[in-house]
Amino acid sequence: MSKKYAIIGTGAIGGFYGGKLAKKGHDVHFLAKSDYEHIKNKGLTIHSINGDFHLEKVNVYNDISNMPPCDVICICLKTTNNHLLPSFISKIAHDKSTIVLIQNGLGMEQELSVLFPELKIAGGMAYICSSKSQPGLVYHQDNGQISFGTFNFDDISILEEIAEDFVSSGVSAKVEKNLGAARWRKLIWNIPYNGLSVVLDSSTDKLMNNSASRSIVKELMLETIEGAQACGYALNPELADQMLEFTDRMRPYYPSMKLDYDNHRVMEIKYIYSNPVSLAKKSGYKMRKVEMLENQLKFLQDQ
Amino acid sequence: MSKKYAIIGTGAIGGFYGGKLAKKGHDVHFLAKSDYEHIKNKGLTIHSINGDFHLEKVNVYNDISNMPPCDVICICLKTTNNHLLPSFISKIAHDKSTIVLIQNGLGMEQELSVLFPELKIAGGMAYICSSKSQPGLVYHQDNGQISFGTFNFDDISILEEIAEDFVSSGVSAKVEKNLGAARWRKLIWNIPYNGLSVVLDSSTDKLMNNSASRSIVKELMLETIEGAQACGYALNPELADQMLEFTDRMRPYYPSMKLDYDNHRVMEIKYIYSNPVSLAKKSGYKMRKVEMLENQLKFLQDQ
Repeated sequence: MSKKYAIIGTGAIGGFYGGKLAKKGHDVHFLAKSDYEHIKNKGLTIHSINGDFHLEKVNVYNDISNMPPCDVICICLKTTNNHLLPSFISKIAHDKSTIVLIQNGLGMEQELSVLFPELKIAGGMAYICSSKSQPGLVYHQDNGQISFGTFNFDDISILEEIAEDFVSSGVSAKVEKNLGAARWRKLIWNIPYNGLSVVLDSSTDKLMNNSASRSIVKELMLETIEGAQACGYALNPELADQMLEFTDRMRPYYPSMKLDYDNHRVMEIKYIYSNPVSLAKKSGYKMRKVEMLENQLKFLQDQ
Repeated sequence: MSKKYAIIGTGAIGGFYGGKLAKKGHDVHFLAKSDYEHIKNKGLTIHSINGDFHLEKVNVYNDISNMPPCDVICICLKTTNNHLLPSFISKIAHDKSTIVLIQNGLGMEQELSVLFPELKIAGGMAYICSSKSQPGLVYHQDNGQISFGTFNFDDISILEEIAEDFVSSGVSAKVEKNLGAARWRKLIWNIPYNGLSVVLDSSTDKLMNNSASRSIVKELMLETIEGAQACGYALNPELADQMLEFTDRMRPYYPSMKLDYDNHRVMEIKYIYSNPVSLAKKSGYKMRKVEMLENQLKFLQDQ
């Protein structure tokens, strides 16, 4: 049965994945804010390493109250907007909706499940380098694979169907066995590169090509792996070297937190840094370097 | 017996302490570089919270070969210039000279004693906020106490005499029982404030008045104390709170490393960060946050 998708947040993530689904002909409804008028009048354009495309007609809304109830609600907002989710979801979800939080960090599903215990809540881990460089234009620079994992439901057939929709739309997608482990694994990338790009005013390639910063990156990765282990997720320490190699292969990139900081937006410190540090600490492990980076970011955020 | 003092480096440290000694009438000879002509022609001026003064006639040199042999050779250069010391000291020391390294960090005395085992080598710990704001002008902003400790000789009467000369010149001065402990104690201040002022582009007061950065400062202090302990120096953890209170009382200040970085000079990373981290590691203790700050500074230095 064809599913109705909601893309909440038509930015670098939502614009790309929603755009891919819509191009394939899936029934996709986008919530946009700053570039609603542009998308409504001129459509949505994706400049992608896998081929550019343009969607002339897009189901785009600037008020969630006008959106139809959707079967799959992809939350593609920054976590700094998660205070909006209760109101959004209560307006757009039906009894059998699945909420997929395509976000970075830890603890988002937990928070939402307390408010909506009856809904199916899942996480999405997007390994993608993309940015919204202009209104209505998403620049997909590198990678793009995504995975999904259930937070509070056992029958994951719905996630498999979503992954199939993504795959049929040209996106590499799969279902994870363990959302917690997948969230922590994503943090192995996010924790070093997001924060260091801000504190050291640097792109990923500069961080990788200097031995001192590369050493910090690896140490932060290893601490993240040990934090995950303390929390019961048996991540392999070899993941650090794999993430380093993954990043070595990437084109030079400014992570989203760097763009947020440079554009004077609030940074996603809570879910990417504070929650992992706090959870690991509760399990008896001090992520000392990650905590220092967290506090450096908090200081910079406050200036 | 009156001692002949050499001040090697007439900057924020050498200009202040040498200036105080010279004002009192001690026999002081200054080596200057960039502002030699200014000091020779117009003298040396100290703007000090304890009272301004001007020395019209100063024994100033721009070539160490022209300086007389001196009894007490105060090294007031940044440690980034320590490669110059072998040549300097061989030109100015006599058999009974005492070398006092008024510098920050760890390992300077060790390095010098290998080259000059026959000379008396001591360290000087200056707790002072000062800067050279213009040629021939030292701005003494806060504090000013100094202490001395022997590195390779047992009879410390010479250090007591030097301390007396400083005290008679209006400087709070004393002799330490244990140079290693005193060097580490000084690092409790230098390690957090020097590095964080660079990485977070901040003065001391901003670092103190933000809860996130204040937390980093204290954690770095505690790691430094634990590093000292691992190396056999029984520093009291309460020193962290004492240093925080000391800094709370200070006027807003840019540490010397911040001035070095802003003026595109080499930063004193090796002696203030790398040596302590490495010594603690050899003794089985990982200064994880200090090491991260060390690597952040190395990255910034390389840009």
